[in-house]
Amino acid sequence: MGKSLLHTPEGVRDIYGEEYERKLIIERRLHDTIRRYGYQDIQTPTFEFFDVYSKQIGTTPSAQLYKFFDKEGNTLSLRPDFTPSCARCAAKYFMDEKGPIRLTYSGNTFTNTSSLQGKLKEVTQMGAELMMEPSVLADAEMIAMVIDALQSCGLSDFQITIGEVEYFKGICHQAGIEDDVELRLRDFISAKNYFGVQELLEQCGVDGNQARILLRLSDTVMGKSDLGEAKKAVSNRRSLQAIERLEALYAVLKEYGVEKYVTFDLGLLSKYHYYTGVIFKGYTYGVGDAIVTGGRYDTLLSCFGKSAPAIGFMVVVDDLMEALARQKLQPDIRCDGVLIAYEEKTYLRALQKAQKLRQDGVRVALVPLSQSPDDWKTYARGQLIERVILMKKEGNEEFS
Amino acid sequence: MGKSLLHTPEGVRDIYGEEYERKLIIERRLHDTIRRYGYQDIQTPTFEFFDVYSKQIGTTPSAQLYKFFDKEGNTLSLRPDFTPSCARCAAKYFMDEKGPIRLTYSGNTFTNTSSLQGKLKEVTQMGAELMMEPSVLADAEMIAMVIDALQSCGLSDFQITIGEVEYFKGICHQAGIEDDVELRLRDFISAKNYFGVQELLEQCGVDGNQARILLRLSDTVMGKSDLGEAKKAVSNRRSLQAIERLEALYAVLKEYGVEKYVTFDLGLLSKYHYYTGVIFKGYTYGVGDAIVTGGRYDTLLSCFGKSAPAIGFMVVVDDLMEALARQKLQPDIRCDGVLIAYEEKTYLRALQKAQKLRQDGVRVALVPLSQSPDDWKTYARGQLIERVILMKKEGNEEFS
Repeated sequence: MGKSLLHTPEGVRDIYGEEYERKLIIERRLHDTIRRYGYQDIQTPTFEFFDVYSKQIGTTPSAQLYKFFDKEGNTLSLRPDFTPSCARCAAKYFMDEKGPIRLTYSGNTFTNTSSLQGKLKEVTQMGAELMMEPSVLADAEMIAMVIDALQSCGLSDFQITIGEVEYFKGICHQAGIEDDVELRLRDFISAKNYFGVQELLEQCGVDGNQARILLRLSDTVMGKSDLGEAKKAVSNRRSLQAIERLEALYAVLKEYGVEKYVTFDLGLLSKYHYYTGVIFKGYTYGVGDAIVTGGRYDTLLSCFGKSAPAIGFMVVVDDLMEALARQKLQPDIRCDGVLIAYEEKTYLRALQKAQKLRQDGVRVALVPLSQSPDDWKTYARGQLIERVILMKKEGNEEFS
Repeated sequence: MGKSLLHTPEGVRDIYGEEYERKLIIERRLHDTIRRYGYQDIQTPTFEFFDVYSKQIGTTPSAQLYKFFDKEGNTLSLRPDFTPSCARCAAKYFMDEKGPIRLTYSGNTFTNTSSLQGKLKEVTQMGAELMMEPSVLADAEMIAMVIDALQSCGLSDFQITIGEVEYFKGICHQAGIEDDVELRLRDFISAKNYFGVQELLEQCGVDGNQARILLRLSDTVMGKSDLGEAKKAVSNRRSLQAIERLEALYAVLKEYGVEKYVTFDLGLLSKYHYYTGVIFKGYTYGVGDAIVTGGRYDTLLSCFGKSAPAIGFMVVVDDLMEALARQKLQPDIRCDGVLIAYEEKTYLRALQKAQKLRQDGVRVALVPLSQSPDDWKTYARGQLIERVILMKKEGNEEFS
């Protein structure tokens, strides 16, 4: 026992002091922004039946879920993300709702990866879902809200990269690619694995123009060509409609005045297979991975018995915090409140003053006067407390 | 698939709409109160190494923990309560701190009970820990803060029942009762199982005065005798000191002006074996179980390599919510914000108005004008939105 118990498992951690104060400030800013767009809070269980995250749903692969049993012998799993739970709730509680459903959530999510990958296994995700609204206006609201939310945290140097899954699917369909090959191709392109795509296409005998476009999608640089070029490259209806959707989206985003934060990448696909149409990721410098992911998932709700279109996003708060720290954009922490140090003889006076201040909403920490004034100064700073009152028998000593 | 996936596992649930709004309000009030006493927020992982909740630590029994494995083969467990994690953190991050350590936490906890017991398996707990402060003043702060926190939620009809584990331990020691029997006795008395205590004492050959007092502790009514009587009943030093501690505690609680919320019960022990001295529970009508539990755990930190006294409390937010609902003391929910319904031709105007209002901090939900005014009124109420603006080509229509 003793020392060996001090450690947390790999990939999870304690957050306290200034770091946690900052995290709470950032969470509040994100939440305030999302609320301003009319989203309502929802809390779903930390674990669900394993089936809610099954292959058919298309979330995190089963091998990366934490699985365990309840007393009834059911297989449960810690949530890897919130979207399947929100879809389940929409189908369960809002089955007959005709108007748009706007939900927002905040909580921790879990992926059971190997520690070799060096990623956090428990992170805080905050996000929003807009259901029952199939139009491009919903896509635009979601992306503009993400930009607003990131700006509210003090971030200014970021990009939202937008793709459209149907562009890729249209090409696959035209090339006669089977569903299972399409999923593997999707993962390769998602990972920008050019050679993986090349080999897979050769194996399946896909060549010509379709192969060229698919290869281009997996190329990090070439992928970011403009919409006009991407449109010229294809001839199938689905891919063309995908481009038209993105053009319309861009027009609405201009009305929001946020177009400078937006780029397009038709090779942007997702490890979450439930995404169907517009898809997006937010990048900034200071962290390697996307800090925001989102997209349309128009078929997911039907897995829960409600046929309804939907779009959502989520931000990994811990990654956002890291980016803000690297960019020296962390929110300022307010020192406030009073530390009152008492002697045995002054305790009652100290207590009365403390209770009076607390009634007025002031934060007050009471401590026994056992250290030197300098020690208490250091202590107060550590506690983010502004003023120190040493209450002695012979009178008070105050400093900030 | 479909309907069958709609359900959450037994004992966990979704919270949304008005109910969740209310829960967030209550959480904010509790948190504001605790912060006013100088407590700092901390977030610990949702799961820890199983050993952090081992028998030696004295938290929830192993059979009631959710256990699973990570990729490295470690046994992990979802936290059943926060106190062991807070103790671990204090030992890890504040090893050299000389002044009091005040921590507050909020989050969900998990107990893997059988569904037959009909209890929630995931609940939200909020609580606080005051470490490195062995005095009765710390005991009083903790209990007065609990009372303040419950009052801040609108509760007025509640009682904090206070015990002192040393009273029981002193008697056991005097009667020569072995450690393992003492633990079983503790569980029986905790559960007010009079006949269990009687049988166990007979088995162990404990009789006379010590047996009489132990039996009285397990009696629900008789347990609540006053401190004077309890003092007269014992002759051993530990039990007498326990009573003196409670007398001193009562004197300080009078200074806080909260003595009317306090009763004593020397038979109050806990299923958590880590409690060592003063121990307390908060009861109100509308829920069967205690909504608050707390107490001293002066030896727990040494399990993590730091020798330091500590006292803490936690409130089960879900149980508090249920009590408030039963007592018709739920917090009022503020309806605010605006619903703007647009037609294709008025979308840009609607968007501009929405963005302007959002900049001013107003909550605005945009919806396509596809339903009747009455439908939108109903919808707005469901979304807790105050005003509705139907933005038509021929002019706006407004109502509240």
